[in-house]
This record gives sequence, structure tokens and C-alpha cells, in this order.
Amino acid sequence: MKTNKGFDNLQHNYLFAEVAKRTQLHIAKYGDDKICRLGIGDVVQPLSPTVVLALEQASRQMGEVDTFKGYGEYSGYDFAKASLVDYYGCKGIDLDKGDVFVTDGAKSTLGLILDLFDKPCTVAIPNPVYPVYVDTNILNGNNIFYIDGNIQNNFLPQPPKTKVDIVYLCNPNNPTGNVYTRTQLQAWVDYALSNNSIILYDSAYEAFVAPKDECYASSIFQINGAKLCCIEIGSLSKTASFSGLRGGWIVISTTIRHNLNLLFNKLISFKTNGVSYLSQVALSATLSTQGMVHNYKNIKQYLDNAKILKGILTEKNIYNCGGVMSPYIWLQVPHNKSGWEFFDRLLKWGIVGTPGEGFGENGKGFFRLSSFANIDDIYIASQILYSNL
Amino acid sequence: MKTNKGFDNLQHNYLFAEVAKRTQLHIAKYGDDKICRLGIGDVVQPLSPTVVLALEQASRQMGEVDTFKGYGEYSGYDFAKASLVDYYGCKGIDLDKGDVFVTDGAKSTLGLILDLFDKPCTVAIPNPVYPVYVDTNILNGNNIFYIDGNIQNNFLPQPPKTKVDIVYLCNPNNPTGNVYTRTQLQAWVDYALSNNSIILYDSAYEAFVAPKDECYASSIFQINGAKLCCIEIGSLSKTASFSGLRGGWIVISTTIRHNLNLLFNKLISFKTNGVSYLSQVALSATLSTQGMVHNYKNIKQYLDNAKILKGILTEKNIYNCGGVMSPYIWLQVPHNKSGWEFFDRLLKWGIVGTPGEGFGENGKGFFRLSSFANIDDIYIASQILYSNL
Repeated sequence: MKTNKGFDNLQHNYLFAEVAKRTQLHIAKYGDDKICRLGIGDVVQPLSPTVVLALEQASRQMGEVDTFKGYGEYSGYDFAKASLVDYYGCKGIDLDKGDVFVTDGAKSTLGLILDLFDKPCTVAIPNPVYPVYVDTNILNGNNIFYIDGNIQNNFLPQPPKTKVDIVYLCNPNNPTGNVYTRTQLQAWVDYALSNNSIILYDSAYEAFVAPKDECYASSIFQINGAKLCCIEIGSLSKTASFSGLRGGWIVISTTIRHNLNLLFNKLISFKTNGVSYLSQVALSATLSTQGMVHNYKNIKQYLDNAKILKGILTEKNIYNCGGVMSPYIWLQVPHNKSGWEFFDRLLKWGIVGTPGEGFGENGKGFFRLSSFANIDDIYIASQILYSNL
Repeated sequence: MKTNKGFDNLQHNYLFAEVAKRTQLHIAKYGDDKICRLGIGDVVQPLSPTVVLALEQASRQMGEVDTFKGYGEYSGYDFAKASLVDYYGCKGIDLDKGDVFVTDGAKSTLGLILDLFDKPCTVAIPNPVYPVYVDTNILNGNNIFYIDGNIQNNFLPQPPKTKVDIVYLCNPNNPTGNVYTRTQLQAWVDYALSNNSIILYDSAYEAFVAPKDECYASSIFQINGAKLCCIEIGSLSKTASFSGLRGGWIVISTTIRHNLNLLFNKLISFKTNGVSYLSQVALSATLSTQGMVHNYKNIKQYLDNAKILKGILTEKNIYNCGGVMSPYIWLQVPHNKSGWEFFDRLLKWGIVGTPGEGFGENGKGFFRLSSFANIDDIYIASQILYSNL
């Protein structure tokens, strides 16, 4: 027996594990009273009352013979798929229940979906970006073609001249917080259509863009031709505080090229047993009008937080982007220091952030601050940054 | 872009999907008033009051800032791992929290785990067996070496002469309901130790064996040397009616060969975001003394059901096995008919079962009945079988 050679090719410890480790060491030494956690992109607001009520009710249903739910459809319950179809309807996108699948979150779906494709394939991955795209592809033995993000292109790389099989886009972007315009996205869709590529579109932060914004898109399916070549991976972790509950979705149109909708249906029947009934009830509840009113209130708070942090960086003449339609602010580390040096410096002051190099070579010398924090922590962090930067 | 060639090599529709399809067609024609579902192995008893209470409480926790849980440890919360360590302690097995991982169920874990191994590898799979082992390995491009089960070896194949990388064992077996003795399992562990193989031990039905049975094992870790070469995949779907809730575990000892515990830790950090907090709370509640008393009551009911069905088959002189430490009874279809013919015949009478060919070539001419049904359905089914067979 031999183990997967991909493990030997992984370049680094998993970023957030390293962040957690250093933070734990700091806390063990100094206590955690004053730590402002602007590191890992995890929400701080709890589930909405609408969702809690739905979960309590569903829990009781699961305790009665007549309403108990065992295995469900691999692709999700009809009621949950109907909620997703409605959600896309509000964005002006016409989907059918056959186009949507309920998932237990974006990350596991991003891992699973690679099984659809022949290996090794060539995969375009922005640099910097959410490191999971790189790690899963290395593990799968695929060839990675990095597409460079930098200050010149506003960290929004354009389609390459080279032909690739798969393109990863994360929009709004993690870690830079920048957002492609609809025109820029159209260029990507056109690229995929002419090169027979598939775009894996990670829309975990879509709710930070208004559903019908005319300049920016809150779904790739607002772009012409996208249904033929795009797979959209959605998450409720940031939108509705589902990070600990697990719940998301994936859209693969039945009209997509290469029969990928059918193949994904097969794949989930071999490799999953569907998603928790409770998560599906919660998904449906949170996508209701009442649920979304609550969610948008939280999102507004996170955006207000971002504005405060961004204001300080700008005032200190530190290059930064993002933080307008995104909870993330991406900044250039002052004085040519490395991201991990800046991390350790901030940690000493009681602020946890994320070093840019964790997101790829082009992240070196940059740093991500997350606005997923309560307002008190944001004020404390702001004062510290204002006084020390 | 090319799709995974493995899809072309899949031999059949997914078994339970086909069963569901034919059943739906029947219901559309005749209504579902009198259908006795002894087909898919899904429980009918609801979650225990202990679990429901824990879920309601956890739901409310998730709605308050101070008790809200976002992303957790990839491997599971400490309290959930402690419950698993205790559960194994009751079987006389000494584990550490580092040896156990909370999962969202056995099937997705069985899919995920193949990423640990180099491809293509040679995989020994019993025939007949739960079809997911075969499908996921075909999709991964591995070489399958079938190990024959038949009436002569009581459908419990022994270690082959050939050297393989990975061995799948499902014990108690799905679909045959048969159970290896400890002596037979020792032969498998010895085989793995001498051939540098890894055993993937699916223990989804372990709770149907008494925790400290001296002749049979309720965990592979009751066998000498197993920690070095065995991975045990556990599920709460059958034990505690978690099929719709999703919750299970995997044990990979930190002392296992090839550093697989470390690699699995890496793998879940790339490909998952941990398991729902609610599922973990439920797991812990159901493994408590109170929870397990409830679970064993249900299991006893399913075993009583099996006894009734088995009695009729035996009286009618139909070869059958299983159904003693398993919810499944495996029977030889009378009059040399095929499993799907028998399926259609039973369906006409209002009974849904599962054709043996769905579990592999050696299942041809056999049939699986599941005792996961309420007692009224078992009585109706028994009368029908008694009168018509």
C-alpha cells in the first residue's frame, strides 16, 4: 500500500491551522481577554430567531414516528430546492429545481466536485486566493496554472491566453475583497465558452453584493452564457452564520456542457447520503423573507465594520482594497515586512489577522483583515491600529 | 475539459435509485397504502427523546451570541470525541481522542478516504457487498479484486493468496447479514499485517452485536494488531436513527502504519469544514447511557422483526442467512428466478425488497429483506410471504 503522493507535494501547513496555533500559543502566555479576532473568516453573529425556531421544530419532528425523516434525496428536499430557486429568482435568474443541489457547505463541495473531471487536468487558480483550491488540486494530481493578481490588475486577474480545463473564480474575492464587474465576468464566461473550460465559481460572499446590482454580479448566472460552462458553489456560512451548522448549495444547470448535471447527480449518489434534514430546514428558513431581512442586517454590520478598518488604513496611507462589497480588507504590509512578521506584530498588540502568503506567492507582503467581529472588537482594534501603525 | 472516465466504467444505475424508481411507478399506479418497505436499509424509529432534547437545546445555543458556535475543529469537538472514546471503552477498547474523528456519516467518509491512497491501487472487495465500495473505486480508477462470497463460505470470504493494497470488510455484512467470528477477523488482520494492506472496516451495523460478545466482534479493534492496519468507519444511521440527521465517526489510530492518522487530519482540513455542531451534540447525547438504552430497545425490535421474517423463510425451506446479529436477511430466490424478477413479484404483493444482483455478480439469484420496519408492516409482510411463497 502506498499513500497519495499528492501529500508530499503540499507546500505548507494549512493556513488557518497555523494561525490558530500561533494564536493559541499567545493566549496560553497572555490570556485571551483582549484578543480581537480579525483572522479566520468566521462570523460572530448567531443564527437568526427564524432559523432557531425552525430547527427546534424540525428537531421535534425528528422525534415522532409520523414526522421522522430518514435518508432524503441525495440532491436535497424539494422544499429546500424550491427556496433556492426562489432565492435565485430574486436575482433575476431563472432556475429549475433540477439545477440546484443542497450541500453541507462550499468547502466539502469544492473537494467533491473534482471527481467530475479527468485527471490530471489543467486548472487555472488565481494567486492569491483561498488556499483550499490549490491544496485539493495538488492532492488530486492536477496541473495548476496560476493566474496572477497584483496591485496593477487590482488583484482581479483576467483570462489567460493559455487554454485550461478548469478555472476557479472566487467573487467577491477571498482574500482581497475585490469584486469583478459584470463586464469582466463576461470576459471569463466568453473565455470558458471558447476554450471548452468549466468555471468553478465560488460565491460564498455573494450576499455582500446587492442581488440586482447593475455593475456587479451576485451570481455568475447573471452573465450571458454562464449556464453552459459555470458551476456556482454557494454557502450560507457568511450570509446566515451557518459555519457551525453546515449548509450551502451548488448550481449546475441541466443545460451545462458535458452532461455535468447528470454526472454530479451520480457522484452524490455514490459519495454522499444527502444533507441533514435539520440543515435543509434551516436553509429554507434563512432564505425566507424574514430570514433574509435578518441576514442583511448582519451583513450591513460587517460592512460597517470594514468601513471603519478601511478608513484607518487609508488615513495611514497604507495600500488597501476590498471591504466595500466584502468582509475582507487586503492591505500591503508597511515597511516591506512579511505577512507573518506583521501577523506576529499585530498578535502582540492583541489583534489576529491573516498573513497574505498563506493565500499564495502573490500574497507575500500583504495581509488580510476580516470584519467578521463585533463592533466593540472593531473599535478596540481600530484604536490599536490607529495608535501603532 | 474532459470528464472522469470512471463514469463510463460504472456498470449499473445506483441500486437504491432503481429500487426507488420501480417502487414509485408501482405507487403511482396502485397507491402506497399497503406498501411494506423492506428494501432500502433505513430505520423507521424516530430520534430518541434524549437526542431531541439535546438538539433543541443546541439550536437555542446557536441563536445566542455567547453560546453560538461557528467553525469547529475539523476532527470534531472534544466533547464528541470524548463520547466516542467512552463508547469504545465499553467494548474494552482503549482509544485516545486523537484516534477518533467525528464525521457526517459512513458513506461520505468511505468516499473521502480513498484520497489517502496512491492511485491506481488494488482493492479487495467482497462480492456481494454494499455497492458503494465498488462504485467509488471505479470512479477513482482503482483495480478491483473481487473476493467471492457464496453459500459454501457462508458469504464470508477469507483472505486471498494475492496481495492487495486495500481490503473492504463490512461486518456485520450488508447485504448478507452474516458476521465474521473473531477468529476469522484475526485471519484478515494477520493478512493485512503481512501484506502491508489497509483494511477499511465498515462497522455501520456494529450495534447489532453485543459490545463484549466473546465469539463475535463489535469493533475490529477487538482483534490483535488491528490498530496498525485497520480503519474503522462507524455510523449512527442504524444504531440511533441518524440517517436523516447525518452523524458518524472514523477511527484511525495514531499508531497506524504509513502515518495515515496524520494524513487524514490533513485531508479533512482541505476537504471539509468539520461536522455540524448539532450533529455532534446529538452524537454525544445518543452515546450516553440513556441514549444507548433507547437505541438498544430499537435494535432489539429490529432483531425481533428479523426473527419473524427468517422463521417464515426457514419454514418454507428457502435458503437464508443473516438476521441474527443484523437487520438483514439474505435469501436465495426460489425457482431459480432472478432477484429483479423476485423484486417485481414481491412488489405486486405490496412488499419492497432489494434484488441481490444490485450487490454484485455473486448476489444474482439472491434477495435482501430488511427488518427496518414497524411491527405491523412486518406482520402484514409475513402473512403475504407465508401465503404466497
